[in-house]
Amino acid sequence: MPEIVPLEWTGESLRFLDQTKLPQEQAVTVARSYSDVVDAIRGMQVRGAPAVGISSAYALVLAAKAVNTQDMRRMFSYLSDVAKEVIKARPTAANIQWAIQRMLKAANPARSVQELRQRLETEAVAIHREDVATNRRIGELGADLIPQNSTVLTHSNTGALATAGYGTALGVIRSAWEKGNKIRVLATETRPLLQGARLTAWELVQLGIPTDLIVDSAAGTMLSQGQVGCVIVGADRVAANGDIVNKVGTYPLAVMAHENNIPFYVAVPTSTLDLSLASGDGILLEEGDPEEVSRWGNSTTIPKGITVRNIVFDVTPHRYISSIITERGIVTPPYDQGLAKLMETEHQTAEAVPATEEVGVNEEAVG
Amino acid sequence: MPEIVPLEWTGESLRFLDQTKLPQEQAVTVARSYSDVVDAIRGMQVRGAPAVGISSAYALVLAAKAVNTQDMRRMFSYLSDVAKEVIKARPTAANIQWAIQRMLKAANPARSVQELRQRLETEAVAIHREDVATNRRIGELGADLIPQNSTVLTHSNTGALATAGYGTALGVIRSAWEKGNKIRVLATETRPLLQGARLTAWELVQLGIPTDLIVDSAAGTMLSQGQVGCVIVGADRVAANGDIVNKVGTYPLAVMAHENNIPFYVAVPTSTLDLSLASGDGILLEEGDPEEVSRWGNSTTIPKGITVRNIVFDVTPHRYISSIITERGIVTPPYDQGLAKLMETEHQTAEAVPATEEVGVNEEAVG
Repeated sequence: MPEIVPLEWTGESLRFLDQTKLPQEQAVTVARSYSDVVDAIRGMQVRGAPAVGISSAYALVLAAKAVNTQDMRRMFSYLSDVAKEVIKARPTAANIQWAIQRMLKAANPARSVQELRQRLETEAVAIHREDVATNRRIGELGADLIPQNSTVLTHSNTGALATAGYGTALGVIRSAWEKGNKIRVLATETRPLLQGARLTAWELVQLGIPTDLIVDSAAGTMLSQGQVGCVIVGADRVAANGDIVNKVGTYPLAVMAHENNIPFYVAVPTSTLDLSLASGDGILLEEGDPEEVSRWGNSTTIPKGITVRNIVFDVTPHRYISSIITERGIVTPPYDQGLAKLMETEHQTAEAVPATEEVGVNEEAVG
Repeated sequence: MPEIVPLEWTGESLRFLDQTKLPQEQAVTVARSYSDVVDAIRGMQVRGAPAVGISSAYALVLAAKAVNTQDMRRMFSYLSDVAKEVIKARPTAANIQWAIQRMLKAANPARSVQELRQRLETEAVAIHREDVATNRRIGELGADLIPQNSTVLTHSNTGALATAGYGTALGVIRSAWEKGNKIRVLATETRPLLQGARLTAWELVQLGIPTDLIVDSAAGTMLSQGQVGCVIVGADRVAANGDIVNKVGTYPLAVMAHENNIPFYVAVPTSTLDLSLASGDGILLEEGDPEEVSRWGNSTTIPKGITVRNIVFDVTPHRYISSIITERGIVTPPYDQGLAKLMETEHQTAEAVPATEEVGVNEEAVG
């Protein structure tokens, strides 16, 4: 089975599987400028917190390559403007800020524009490569939490398509399956953009993991009828107290799981942690294009005169979360202490990526 | 503003607004035989527990008119078979069994087939007419529960289209509005068939009540952010202990409302009560056509190899329900006692329906 390669860096452009067209069409779109990347994030052609983080890193590489200056102050000022624009494309995803901070830090020692461009590309490629290793480690650690031969409920898409490969929450599912746990997956369709029905289902078919699809609001019934062993989701941001921001529908799932005494797990790379955010209270959540809700194919379902509120994310309070699985370890409540401790430890570089690992970096192209 | 007339009895056929085509098209379909009615219920062209109850009554009228016999035993045996078939079309809706029992009881004293046909038609018309009066009474009683100038969250469609007119839960909303309460409605789209986005939204636009539409899984966020004053829904069946069976998604809404200390109301005619059912535990819930979930317009969203489970209803345990509003009064916990007491009292005939009330019965046609 070939690995899904959602993002590929050619040395001059970022190629990605257009996630708005899957599963009907496996179309590759090419971003040749930072604004192509911004458009792709905005248009959900690239999505998933880790994947948009990596894409943002390449956006800075593309911006630095394109701008015609030898003045370092101008360059940094320009990159700072680009960074703001990229963050604005998906302000909820902590991984964008994380990637950009890491990129700017890597660029900082550069003494020439040429060196800066080189440093940026090297760092973006490192972020890209580390992500798959990080995900495999999350999967390895999390797999043991999945009850044997159970049904695992997941929401939205947290697989290869949401990352550089392998996936976070879906990576845990995959890892459990690869270890011989004969699980079955229950995937929510995930309105409005159907990431579950289109993307998660597509990945699971390729992985050969048996999957049932339900509408989002049917999860409650499945959870209350003892048909689900655990729930596992990803996140776009994790606050210091363990509150998470994730795809709308996560909060109801967590509450229903809690109500029915079913474990609710969150799988994220530490790049999704935002310990500068004390809690999820008062987070201003993005609203999306109303047409994502009201347009069905070429027609509009709703009558004129109705306002659509397209809520994209929701906040799940930490009290509903059983564990947070990261590449550095599994954190259990109290999260404020556990997460802080996790991030105090010396940053362990992700394990060396084997040369055969397909992570979508063109080796020859990287200077 | 003209009243919506979802069902119309001509004396020879049942005409109804095809609910699969709204709001794009206001198509009237004519059922000339009982099996036309069965098909319409099965195909969701007629839906809503009270509306399918009324339609079932007319199904018996049409069956009795069409069958060519003068033998009363044969006639009753035939009607019994027809009744089973009608119930099978939507076994979850208590109103079908209620209507059929009432019809057979009304027919029982008949001494000739002609008298039986007459008695059936008279009873069906009575059931039809009483429904609007019942709904107005539910609305009248329930309106005072709606907080002033609040946002009221509702699920699926419980309006005129789900009944003979006026509606149950949506009737309460309408009644509150007509009494001058400047509410705003938050309607869930209600996957998979979008009764909220298509039908509830359409009714609310006509009533002039300001409405926001959200995807089902966004309700949790709205409830947790203090934006909702109360939730009100209908039901397809209410058990003796107050557990309700209703459109899938009701149970999560009730749990989320409970979690956020927001009142959760159920509005039903007493014809939806099934006190022979002790509780909602172990109810076998209908699953629908998988294509309702996977088909979007003319195309299929999901990849091959995925099983769809189209859960149509769910069970909401009574502990999450603040009050059950019926035309005979508002019942609060403990429901087992309250509901039993409600049904012990002498059956009060619904208030006389004013001659001007548009209830979709052709006066001249009724013999």
